[in-house]
Amino acid sequence: MVNELLYFALGSGVFSILVALLIAWWVNKQDKGTDKMNEIADYIRTGAYAFLRRQYKTIAIIGVVVAVLLGIFFSWQTGFSFILGVAASLFAGFLGMDVATRANIRTANAARTGINRAIRVSFRGGLVMGLAVMGLSLIGVTSLYMLFGDPQMITGFAFGASLAALFAQLGGGIYTKAADIGADLVGKIEKGIPEDDARNPAVIADLVGDNVGDCAGRGADLFESITAENIGAMILGVAFMPVFGIYGIIFPLLARTVGIYATMIGSFFVSTKEGNNPMRALWKGLAVTAVVAGIAFYPLVMNTLGSINYYYISLIGIVSSLLIAIITEYYTSKHYRPVRNISRSSHTGAATNIITGFAIALEAAALPVVVICVALLASFTLGGLYGTAVATMGMLATTGMILAMDVFGPITDNAGGIAEMSKLDKKTRYRTDSLDSVGNTTKALTKGYAMGVAALSAFLLFSAYFKVAGLTSIDVAKPVVFVGAFLGALLPFLFSSFAIRAVGKAAQDMINEVRRQFKATPGIMKGTAKPDYAKCVDISVKASLRQMILPGMLVIIAPIAVGILLRAEAAGAFLIGATISGILLAMMMNTGGGAWDNAKKRIESEGRHGTDAHKASVVGDTLGDPFKDTAGPSLHVLIKLLSTLALIFATLFI
Amino acid sequence: MVNELLYFALGSGVFSILVALLIAWWVNKQDKGTDKMNEIADYIRTGAYAFLRRQYKTIAIIGVVVAVLLGIFFSWQTGFSFILGVAASLFAGFLGMDVATRANIRTANAARTGINRAIRVSFRGGLVMGLAVMGLSLIGVTSLYMLFGDPQMITGFAFGASLAALFAQLGGGIYTKAADIGADLVGKIEKGIPEDDARNPAVIADLVGDNVGDCAGRGADLFESITAENIGAMILGVAFMPVFGIYGIIFPLLARTVGIYATMIGSFFVSTKEGNNPMRALWKGLAVTAVVAGIAFYPLVMNTLGSINYYYISLIGIVSSLLIAIITEYYTSKHYRPVRNISRSSHTGAATNIITGFAIALEAAALPVVVICVALLASFTLGGLYGTAVATMGMLATTGMILAMDVFGPITDNAGGIAEMSKLDKKTRYRTDSLDSVGNTTKALTKGYAMGVAALSAFLLFSAYFKVAGLTSIDVAKPVVFVGAFLGALLPFLFSSFAIRAVGKAAQDMINEVRRQFKATPGIMKGTAKPDYAKCVDISVKASLRQMILPGMLVIIAPIAVGILLRAEAAGAFLIGATISGILLAMMMNTGGGAWDNAKKRIESEGRHGTDAHKASVVGDTLGDPFKDTAGPSLHVLIKLLSTLALIFATLFI
Repeated sequence: MVNELLYFALGSGVFSILVALLIAWWVNKQDKGTDKMNEIADYIRTGAYAFLRRQYKTIAIIGVVVAVLLGIFFSWQTGFSFILGVAASLFAGFLGMDVATRANIRTANAARTGINRAIRVSFRGGLVMGLAVMGLSLIGVTSLYMLFGDPQMITGFAFGASLAALFAQLGGGIYTKAADIGADLVGKIEKGIPEDDARNPAVIADLVGDNVGDCAGRGADLFESITAENIGAMILGVAFMPVFGIYGIIFPLLARTVGIYATMIGSFFVSTKEGNNPMRALWKGLAVTAVVAGIAFYPLVMNTLGSINYYYISLIGIVSSLLIAIITEYYTSKHYRPVRNISRSSHTGAATNIITGFAIALEAAALPVVVICVALLASFTLGGLYGTAVATMGMLATTGMILAMDVFGPITDNAGGIAEMSKLDKKTRYRTDSLDSVGNTTKALTKGYAMGVAALSAFLLFSAYFKVAGLTSIDVAKPVVFVGAFLGALLPFLFSSFAIRAVGKAAQDMINEVRRQFKATPGIMKGTAKPDYAKCVDISVKASLRQMILPGMLVIIAPIAVGILLRAEAAGAFLIGATISGILLAMMMNTGGGAWDNAKKRIESEGRHGTDAHKASVVGDTLGDPFKDTAGPSLHVLIKLLSTLALIFATLFI
Repeated sequence: MVNELLYFALGSGVFSILVALLIAWWVNKQDKGTDKMNEIADYIRTGAYAFLRRQYKTIAIIGVVVAVLLGIFFSWQTGFSFILGVAASLFAGFLGMDVATRANIRTANAARTGINRAIRVSFRGGLVMGLAVMGLSLIGVTSLYMLFGDPQMITGFAFGASLAALFAQLGGGIYTKAADIGADLVGKIEKGIPEDDARNPAVIADLVGDNVGDCAGRGADLFESITAENIGAMILGVAFMPVFGIYGIIFPLLARTVGIYATMIGSFFVSTKEGNNPMRALWKGLAVTAVVAGIAFYPLVMNTLGSINYYYISLIGIVSSLLIAIITEYYTSKHYRPVRNISRSSHTGAATNIITGFAIALEAAALPVVVICVALLASFTLGGLYGTAVATMGMLATTGMILAMDVFGPITDNAGGIAEMSKLDKKTRYRTDSLDSVGNTTKALTKGYAMGVAALSAFLLFSAYFKVAGLTSIDVAKPVVFVGAFLGALLPFLFSSFAIRAVGKAAQDMINEVRRQFKATPGIMKGTAKPDYAKCVDISVKASLRQMILPGMLVIIAPIAVGILLRAEAAGAFLIGATISGILLAMMMNTGGGAWDNAKKRIESEGRHGTDAHKASVVGDTLGDPFKDTAGPSLHVLIKLLSTLALIFATLFI
């Protein structure tokens, strides 16, 4: 029976990939529109591939070195799983980006005929990523488990995925924001030309950035997320063998299959009509996915874990994920108080815009943290330690759908850019703009969701670490453990500092280059000369590849150093300190960044382009850029990386 | 012998107050200069008193209510100590502010004849506060200990001092920054008039703010700091009775007397010559204080604790305090990389200025935290739990001197304002400007120092809590304890959000009022009509009194709720989580704010007033304002308040 279930999980993973390929084929056969559109889309695609090639080469080198070290110091299984994890993560990111750079132009073209066609193309482009990530993770974890028979052995897979994701997200995040800031500050503020104007030398770099940062980066991020949490839950399952038998170990894999099928069913419900808010279409898809998962968990839980309590817990997980999505929408949508306040404070200048936005960013973590704490206590009370694992599995049920909604963001963003640059008609622009604005919200939702999962699953991963390190308590009343927690809490601050500084530096270079081009070639502004797009792309590429190394190394070396010097209990406290402060900082940055962005969009939608208030809001948006697209999402990966790293290195710390 | 020592401590406290009064008398008999100067100084003094009266009334009402509740639910001793603590804290703040509002004009007048006379008047004005705070705390703690014979009984004194300090610092911080931002943004950016120009309607509110925020607020802050840490160390001393006898309890009191005399001696060395950097004069005073304390600790430690190890530990404390001061100077002085980078990034606009500054702010906590962690581990290794108390006592030895340097800041700031507004000659302006700039650095140093002490003493206060709550471990591997830590870490984020939002709101009102006055009365800009200063003062008063209540209540209610719902161990984790995240956030905000401020000053000192880069740097400075003068220092008080609150309420949580 168990073997059948494992093959079922494996088969579901393969099925998920096949469906993803089918959808990718469907997207690819949509019409690509005019020559002008194709020219721009080719620029983007070429730029994205060029960057990815160079970035992947760097990551591959680091990956091989680490794999060899792991093989020597731990076991060949760990090294082997690790390199598979790196490869799978990069492949997931590549796949998502590939279809995104095909879907963008096709979405722009579909928007010429109607909003529903446009949303279908863009959403399905995102769905390819969602299904591919779910499938790849499930295939990887299941087959390695079938191969080695011990979840602890395959921790390397999660570690590899995390490490690749860290560099992918960080590098992509630096790339995209350097370009975005450079394009916006000179284009919008100094020159007064609109977003995505073809005259802006940094515009192609900006559009490429959406793909390499938001698609490839976020895909790698969520791939490692579900992988790490599955493996963490399986390790806990080993400890609970006396209670659940083998089912405690394979339950996480089966929960993933539920997520895959629920996402497929939910995706059929994403459709809209001309004039309706497209966000409602996505919410409908998400709600159906959640309900289907909520129903399917009942037979799954009863036949494996055998207690209705665990079913309730899985519902707690699903509901928490929806609650966090709703809270995030409240803080980042332009229809509610937070964004309204920021946009109002722009009238007294950039300084008050930023002060107000920062206050809201600091506040934004509060409600999600309370939701997580209640979910954690409730699931622990109902089902003990394994209960927290079940809650996480419930929360992860909607991952595929959430990821599809997320990638929808950069696709529509690109579609808007292509429409603007190839001067499509106003109606088409209106449609792509409305999709783009929805994409902003879904991107914020995904980050909120990802952090919620990280927070809830943090405890699960700690518990796995305790088991592996043989700890029974982490007593912060001991000075050395307190110091571990203190240093751990410091890490996300320092890491964010590096990430934000990298963007700041690269953005300054970009600004100077864009200014230089406008000055040296006056024909650019008149539209008679073509800007040198490639030069701007190059600045982003170099900055991101160079600057992702130091923070990446910091995250690997710091916890190992603490573990070796201060031992396992302090390393556990380090993990907890870093996780808590990382979650709070990331929520602050993600939500704050989204709110600043939409405050600017709110002012633009009121038709106040070019006013002082608009300029002030662009400054706020610019601060928000590295918050929400570089440091924030990278912190999410960082937290997971620390957990998987601690799981592997635990034996060294004892 | 013990009684004699207690009387010696009491006598030293009284002596400290007497010396403070003597210096205050000396300051008061200095010449006050021209009529115009007197007119302005009277405005400031009247405004400051009017605010303090109203603020103190609010705090007194809250204080009496809490005292009665404490008397009913705990003991009359706790209620009595509490109200004494409130009164002493308010009195210390009042005293410092009173002499500061006398020293400001006299410093301006002294600057007309020479830099050394000016530094002497301003530093001595600050010294009054330093000695008064040290003396009052020592008298209060010693006499209450002699009365009740049990340190646990007098925790109420520290709690009262903390609560009063929270409101004083928060209210004062909101007041001063609303005025400062309003004055700067309209005056400097929109109207292009210099700082402290008499035509600016918000200028008086700004100068009043320096006194009520920086003097009264910071005085109350450091008063509760040394009080709480003394009492915490004494509670630990009770637990160590078998080792040190009664000396473990009274050692902290005697260490304070060392600090008082060392400060007095050090103060004689604060003098400078025309043309020298005045900062060197203050460093000299601080260094002498540290050396004297370092010597005096030897006989003290050997005759009470009886082990050379504890002497080494006290030196670790002293050295740590100096290291943190040096690190803070590095991050906030305009001569080093961090500020230089911010000022350079201003050339590409406000957005890059803020991004760079924020990256530096995030980085700034790293080195101080490492210093603290090393000091903590070293002192624990050398001297066990009581060792951490001794290290804290060592670190506190320079408090009087540090506080004097701190209050020097607002005095010279005010002196500069008075000199500018009464149009004193250029040479005088130059002298007050150079003192003002030094004052900026000393203010940053004090905050770095205060946070360093808070971090080092955090462990001491936790330990006192563990003793009182009867806990032997705080195991964050338990879900409920983890939730406690998570919620605790959230608190400083939420509190900062409230504080910063309050400033943002009040600043918007202020900006609109200043704009209105300039528009309604064109004569103001021409210098023919007087602006309505009182209206601006009123906006600051109302905003600060209204908006300090909610965050204040949050800090009191949240830990009590967690303690009652999740019990003592989770409350301990809450305390630790809040302390760690509070320290990191506060360091980020204090240092970041100071760096932004001096980046602006650097650009100004290069003579680039009114350029785009200067305007960009003003935006950064404005974001830094509520960071460094409202949220940051209030977080410091918050951390202490939580500890003293937990000590009192511990019995409810068990």
